[in-house]
Amino acid sequence: MNKFIAIANKEASLGMNAGHGGPFGAVVVKGNKIISKAHNMVVKSKDPTEHAEIAAIRMASRKLGRFDLRDCEIYSSCFPCPMCFAAIRWAKIGKIFFGATASDAAKIGFDDKKIYGEIRKHFKTNFLEKQLDRKECLKTLLSWKKKKNKTLY
Amino acid sequence: MNKFIAIANKEASLGMNAGHGGPFGAVVVKGNKIISKAHNMVVKSKDPTEHAEIAAIRMASRKLGRFDLRDCEIYSSCFPCPMCFAAIRWAKIGKIFFGATASDAAKIGFDDKKIYGEIRKHFKTNFLEKQLDRKECLKTLLSWKKKKNKTLY
Repeated sequence: MNKFIAIANKEASLGMNAGHGGPFGAVVVKGNKIISKAHNMVVKSKDPTEHAEIAAIRMASRKLGRFDLRDCEIYSSCFPCPMCFAAIRWAKIGKIFFGATASDAAKIGFDDKKIYGEIRKHFKTNFLEKQLDRKECLKTLLSWKKKKNKTLY
Repeated sequence: MNKFIAIANKEASLGMNAGHGGPFGAVVVKGNKIISKAHNMVVKSKDPTEHAEIAAIRMASRKLGRFDLRDCEIYSSCFPCPMCFAAIRWAKIGKIFFGATASDAAKIGFDDKKIYGEIRKHFKTNFLEKQLDRKECLKTLLSWKKKKNKTLY
Protein backbone atom coordinates (compact mmCIF):
# COMPACT_ATOMS: atom_id res chain seq x y z
CA MET A 1 0.00 0.00 0.00
CA ASN A 2 1.07 3.59 -0.55
CA LYS A 3 2.40 4.70 2.84
CA PHE A 4 0.38 7.90 3.05
CA ILE A 5 -2.85 6.32 1.87
CA ALA A 6 -2.27 3.64 4.51
CA ILE A 7 -2.02 6.36 7.18
CA ALA A 8 -5.14 8.12 5.85
CA ASN A 9 -6.95 4.80 5.90
CA LYS A 10 -5.78 4.09 9.45
CA GLU A 11 -7.06 7.51 10.52
CA ALA A 12 -10.40 6.60 8.94
CA SER A 13 -10.64 3.46 11.06
CA LEU A 14 -9.44 5.17 14.22
CA GLY A 15 -12.00 7.94 13.89
CA MET A 16 -14.85 5.61 13.11
CA ASN A 17 -14.01 3.28 15.96
CA ALA A 18 -13.70 6.15 18.41
CA GLY A 19 -17.17 7.34 17.34
CA HIS A 20 -15.82 10.64 16.11
CA GLY A 21 -17.59 10.49 12.75
CA GLY A 22 -17.64 8.73 9.40
CA PRO A 23 -14.89 6.41 8.16
CA PHE A 24 -12.72 8.98 6.43
CA GLY A 25 -9.10 10.03 6.91
CA ALA A 26 -6.71 12.44 5.23
CA VAL A 27 -3.03 13.33 5.34
CA VAL A 28 -1.34 16.51 4.11
CA VAL A 29 2.19 15.84 2.88
CA LYS A 30 5.00 18.22 1.91
CA GLY A 31 8.15 16.85 0.34
CA ASN A 32 7.48 13.33 1.56
CA LYS A 33 6.88 14.54 5.15
CA ILE A 34 3.55 14.46 6.93
CA ILE A 35 2.40 17.94 7.90
CA SER A 36 -0.97 16.91 9.30
CA LYS A 37 -3.32 13.97 9.51
CA ALA A 38 -6.94 13.94 10.56
CA HIS A 39 -10.16 12.01 10.48
CA ASN A 40 -13.81 12.96 10.19
CA MET A 41 -14.97 14.63 13.42
CA VAL A 42 -18.52 15.63 12.50
CA VAL A 43 -20.17 13.61 15.26
CA LYS A 44 -17.73 14.40 18.06
CA SER A 45 -17.42 18.10 17.32
CA LYS A 46 -21.06 18.43 16.19
CA ASP A 47 -19.67 20.44 13.29
CA PRO A 48 -20.98 19.41 9.86
CA THR A 49 -17.89 20.89 8.20
CA GLU A 50 -15.28 18.94 10.13
CA HIS A 51 -14.50 16.37 7.46
CA ALA A 52 -11.06 14.74 7.40
CA GLU A 53 -9.68 16.88 4.57
CA ILE A 54 -10.98 20.15 6.02
CA ALA A 55 -9.50 19.25 9.42
CA ALA A 56 -6.16 18.24 7.86
CA ILE A 57 -6.00 21.42 5.79
CA ARG A 58 -6.81 23.63 8.78
CA MET A 59 -4.15 21.87 10.81
CA ALA A 60 -1.56 22.15 8.03
CA SER A 61 -2.34 25.84 7.54
CA ARG A 62 -1.94 26.46 11.26
CA LYS A 63 1.32 24.54 11.31
CA LEU A 64 2.82 26.23 8.24
CA GLY A 65 1.32 29.63 9.12
CA ARG A 66 -0.22 30.21 5.70
CA PHE A 67 -3.38 29.52 3.73
CA ASP A 68 -1.51 28.71 0.53
CA LEU A 69 -0.49 25.06 0.57
CA ARG A 70 0.50 24.73 -3.08
CA ASP A 71 3.69 22.90 -2.11
CA CYS A 72 1.66 20.17 -0.40
CA GLU A 73 -0.20 17.08 -1.55
CA ILE A 74 -3.23 15.47 0.03
CA TYR A 75 -3.96 11.79 0.53
CA SER A 76 -7.55 10.81 1.30
CA SER A 77 -8.89 7.39 2.19
CA CYS A 78 -11.90 8.19 0.01
CA PHE A 79 -12.38 10.66 -2.84
CA PRO A 80 -13.16 14.02 -1.22
CA CYS A 81 -16.71 15.27 -1.10
CA PRO A 82 -17.33 18.52 -3.02
CA MET A 83 -16.82 20.60 0.13
CA CYS A 84 -13.40 19.05 0.67
CA PHE A 85 -12.54 19.03 -3.02
CA ALA A 86 -13.14 22.77 -3.18
CA ALA A 87 -11.28 23.31 0.11
CA ILE A 88 -8.28 21.53 -1.42
CA ARG A 89 -8.49 23.83 -4.43
CA TRP A 90 -8.81 26.95 -2.26
CA ALA A 91 -5.70 25.78 -0.44
CA LYS A 92 -4.11 25.56 -3.90
CA ILE A 93 -3.09 21.97 -3.34
CA GLY A 94 -2.59 20.57 -6.84
CA LYS A 95 -2.24 16.86 -6.15
CA ILE A 96 -4.76 14.55 -4.59
CA PHE A 97 -4.39 10.84 -4.07
CA PHE A 98 -7.39 8.85 -2.92
CA GLY A 99 -8.43 5.31 -2.08
CA ALA A 100 -12.16 4.64 -2.28
CA THR A 101 -14.49 6.57 -4.61
CA ALA A 102 -17.52 8.85 -4.20
CA SER A 103 -19.66 5.92 -5.37
CA ASP A 104 -18.15 3.78 -2.62
CA ALA A 105 -19.14 6.46 -0.09
CA ALA A 106 -22.66 6.55 -1.54
CA LYS A 107 -22.93 2.81 -1.07
CA ILE A 108 -22.36 3.14 2.67
CA GLY A 109 -24.93 5.90 2.98
CA PHE A 110 -23.04 9.16 2.51
CA ASP A 111 -24.27 12.04 0.39
CA ASP A 112 -21.07 12.92 -1.51
CA LYS A 113 -22.34 11.64 -4.81
CA LYS A 114 -25.73 13.26 -4.38
CA ILE A 115 -24.15 16.65 -3.67
CA TYR A 116 -21.79 16.25 -6.62
CA GLY A 117 -24.87 15.54 -8.70
CA GLU A 118 -26.59 18.66 -7.42
CA ILE A 119 -23.60 20.76 -8.38
CA ARG A 120 -23.29 19.13 -11.77
CA LYS A 121 -26.95 19.59 -12.53
CA HIS A 122 -26.50 23.32 -12.00
CA PHE A 123 -28.56 23.07 -8.86
CA LYS A 124 -31.69 21.85 -10.59
CA THR A 125 -32.87 20.17 -7.40
CA ASN A 126 -35.57 20.68 -4.82
CA PHE A 127 -33.06 22.75 -2.90
CA LEU A 128 -34.44 26.26 -2.62
CA GLU A 129 -32.08 28.95 -3.74
CA LYS A 130 -33.13 32.46 -4.46
CA GLN A 131 -31.23 35.53 -5.42
CA LEU A 132 -31.93 38.70 -3.46
CA ASP A 133 -30.56 42.23 -3.71
CA ARG A 134 -27.74 41.48 -6.12
CA LYS A 135 -27.20 45.16 -6.84
CA GLU A 136 -26.28 46.08 -3.28
CA CYS A 137 -24.21 42.94 -2.73
CA LEU A 138 -22.37 43.45 -5.97
CA LYS A 139 -21.32 46.89 -4.78
CA THR A 140 -19.48 45.31 -1.89
CA LEU A 141 -17.81 42.85 -4.23
CA LEU A 142 -16.73 45.54 -6.61
CA SER A 143 -15.28 47.60 -3.77
CA TRP A 144 -12.89 44.66 -3.20
CA LYS A 145 -11.52 45.20 -6.66
CA LYS A 146 -10.74 48.82 -5.89
CA LYS A 147 -9.41 48.15 -2.40
CA LYS A 148 -5.68 48.65 -1.87
CA ASN A 149 -3.58 46.70 0.61
CA LYS A 150 -5.51 43.48 0.30
CA THR A 151 -4.11 39.99 0.55
CA LEU A 152 -5.14 37.87 -2.41
CA TYR A 153 -5.97 34.22 -1.84
CA MET B 1 -33.32 45.22 0.94
CA ASN B 2 -34.01 41.90 2.58
CA LYS B 3 -32.98 42.39 6.21
CA PHE B 4 -30.80 39.29 6.45
CA ILE B 5 -29.09 39.84 3.10
CA ALA B 6 -28.41 43.39 4.29
CA ILE B 7 -26.69 41.98 7.39
CA ALA B 8 -24.71 39.45 5.32
CA ASN B 9 -23.67 42.26 3.00
CA LYS B 10 -22.66 44.45 5.95
CA GLU B 11 -20.53 41.57 7.31
CA ALA B 12 -18.90 41.35 3.89
CA SER B 13 -17.90 45.01 4.03
CA LEU B 14 -16.80 44.85 7.65
CA GLY B 15 -14.56 41.85 7.03
CA MET B 16 -13.03 43.30 3.90
CA ASN B 17 -12.38 46.66 5.51
CA ALA B 18 -10.83 45.04 8.55
CA GLY B 19 -8.50 43.08 6.24
CA HIS B 20 -9.87 39.75 7.44
CA GLY B 21 -10.39 38.35 3.95
CA GLY B 22 -12.54 38.61 0.84
CA PRO B 23 -15.78 40.62 0.64
CA PHE B 24 -18.18 37.90 1.68
CA GLY B 25 -20.67 37.61 4.53
CA ALA B 26 -23.24 35.07 5.67
CA VAL B 27 -26.02 34.79 8.21
CA VAL B 28 -27.67 31.64 9.57
CA VAL B 29 -31.31 32.23 10.49
CA LYS B 30 -33.80 30.07 12.33
CA GLY B 31 -37.45 31.10 12.48
CA ASN B 32 -36.66 34.71 11.60
CA LYS B 33 -33.94 34.92 14.30
CA ILE B 34 -30.24 35.26 13.62
CA ILE B 35 -28.28 32.30 15.00
CA SER B 36 -24.90 33.36 13.66
CA LYS B 37 -23.28 35.79 11.30
CA ALA B 38 -19.77 35.75 9.92
CA HIS B 39 -17.48 37.05 7.23
CA ASN B 40 -14.59 35.61 5.29
CA MET B 41 -11.57 35.20 7.58
CA VAL B 42 -9.11 33.43 5.25
CA VAL B 43 -6.46 36.12 5.49
CA LYS B 44 -6.71 36.84 9.20
CA SER B 45 -6.88 33.23 10.31
CA LYS B 46 -4.57 31.99 7.51
CA ASP B 47 -7.10 29.21 7.04
CA PRO B 48 -8.18 28.65 3.42
CA THR B 49 -11.43 27.05 4.61
CA GLU B 50 -12.66 29.94 6.73
CA HIS B 51 -15.17 31.34 4.28
CA ALA B 52 -18.18 33.25 5.59
CA GLU B 53 -20.65 30.37 5.20
CA ILE B 54 -18.33 27.79 6.77
CA ALA B 55 -17.67 30.12 9.70
CA ALA B 56 -21.39 30.90 10.13
CA ILE B 57 -22.31 27.19 9.99
CA ARG B 58 -19.61 26.25 12.53
CA MET B 59 -20.83 28.99 14.83
CA ALA B 60 -24.48 28.00 14.45
CA SER B 61 -23.64 24.34 15.09
CA ARG B 62 -21.73 25.28 18.22
CA LYS B 63 -24.59 27.49 19.40
CA LEU B 64 -27.34 24.94 18.74
CA GLY B 65 -25.17 21.99 19.82
CA ARG B 66 -25.84 19.93 16.70
CA PHE B 67 -24.53 19.37 13.19
CA ASP B 68 -28.00 19.10 11.66
CA LEU B 69 -29.27 22.57 10.86
CA ARG B 70 -32.23 21.59 8.70
CA ASP B 71 -34.47 24.05 10.52
CA CYS B 72 -32.21 26.93 9.52
CA GLU B 73 -31.79 29.07 6.41
CA ILE B 74 -28.66 30.74 5.17
CA TYR B 75 -28.26 34.19 3.64
CA SER B 76 -25.06 34.92 1.73
CA SER B 77 -23.93 38.19 0.25
CA CYS B 78 -22.66 36.21 -2.74
CA PHE B 79 -23.61 32.79 -4.08
CA PRO B 80 -21.60 30.25 -2.07
CA CYS B 81 -18.50 28.69 -3.56
CA PRO B 82 -18.69 24.89 -4.02
CA MET B 83 -17.01 24.30 -0.65
CA CYS B 84 -19.63 26.39 1.10
CA PHE B 85 -22.47 25.07 -1.05
CA ALA B 86 -21.60 21.52 -0.04
CA ALA B 87 -21.10 22.56 3.60
CA ILE B 88 -24.63 23.99 3.55
CA ARG B 89 -25.91 20.70 2.17
CA TRP B 90 -23.98 18.64 4.75
CA ALA B 91 -25.59 20.83 7.41
CA LYS B 92 -28.90 19.89 5.77
CA ILE B 93 -29.86 23.51 5.36
CA GLY B 94 -32.49 23.50 2.61
CA LYS B 95 -32.85 27.19 1.85
CA ILE B 96 -30.23 29.56 0.63
CA PHE B 97 -30.69 33.19 -0.26
CA PHE B 98 -27.91 35.06 -1.96
CA GLY B 99 -27.03 38.49 -3.35
CA ALA B 100 -24.24 38.51 -5.91
CA THR B 101 -23.47 35.53 -8.17
CA ALA B 102 -20.48 33.22 -8.74
CA SER B 103 -19.82 35.14 -11.96
CA ASP B 104 -19.73 38.35 -9.99
CA ALA B 105 -17.11 36.78 -7.69
CA ALA B 106 -15.11 35.66 -10.73
CA LYS B 107 -15.13 39.22 -12.02
CA ILE B 108 -13.38 40.45 -8.89
CA GLY B 109 -10.75 37.72 -9.07
CA PHE B 110 -12.13 34.82 -7.02
CA ASP B 111 -11.99 31.21 -8.12
CA ASP B 112 -15.53 30.08 -7.28
CA LYS B 113 -16.60 29.82 -10.90
CA LYS B 114 -13.40 28.04 -11.90
CA ILE B 115 -13.82 25.45 -9.15
CA TYR B 116 -17.48 24.97 -10.05
CA GLY B 117 -16.29 24.40 -13.60
CA GLU B 118 -13.76 21.83 -12.46
CA ILE B 119 -16.43 19.93 -10.60
CA ARG B 120 -18.87 20.13 -13.49
CA LYS B 121 -16.30 18.93 -15.96
CA HIS B 122 -15.83 15.82 -13.82
CA PHE B 123 -12.39 17.05 -12.92
CA LYS B 124 -11.06 17.03 -16.46
CA THR B 125 -8.50 19.64 -15.53
CA ASN B 126 -4.77 19.84 -15.04
CA PHE B 127 -5.40 19.02 -11.40
CA LEU B 128 -3.67 15.74 -10.62
CA GLU B 129 -5.88 13.15 -9.02
CA LYS B 130 -5.00 9.54 -8.78
CA GLN B 131 -6.67 6.61 -7.15
CA LEU B 132 -4.53 4.41 -4.90
CA ASP B 133 -5.32 1.28 -2.89
CA ARG B 134 -9.08 1.37 -3.28
CA LYS B 135 -9.45 -2.18 -2.03
CA GLU B 136 -8.01 -1.49 1.40
CA CYS B 137 -9.75 1.86 1.76
CA LEU B 138 -13.05 0.37 0.70
CA LYS B 139 -12.76 -2.16 3.53
CA THR B 140 -12.76 0.66 6.03
CA LEU B 141 -15.77 2.20 4.36
CA LEU B 142 -17.68 -1.05 4.34
CA SER B 143 -16.92 -1.63 8.01
CA TRP B 144 -18.88 1.58 8.67
CA LYS B 145 -21.92 -0.07 7.21
CA LYS B 146 -21.62 -2.95 9.64
CA LYS B 147 -20.73 -0.82 12.63
CA LYS B 148 -23.36 -0.57 15.35
CA ASN B 149 -23.85 2.44 17.60
CA LYS B 150 -22.95 5.01 15.00
CA THR B 151 -24.42 8.46 14.61
CA LEU B 152 -25.57 9.10 11.07
CA TYR B 153 -25.09 12.57 9.64
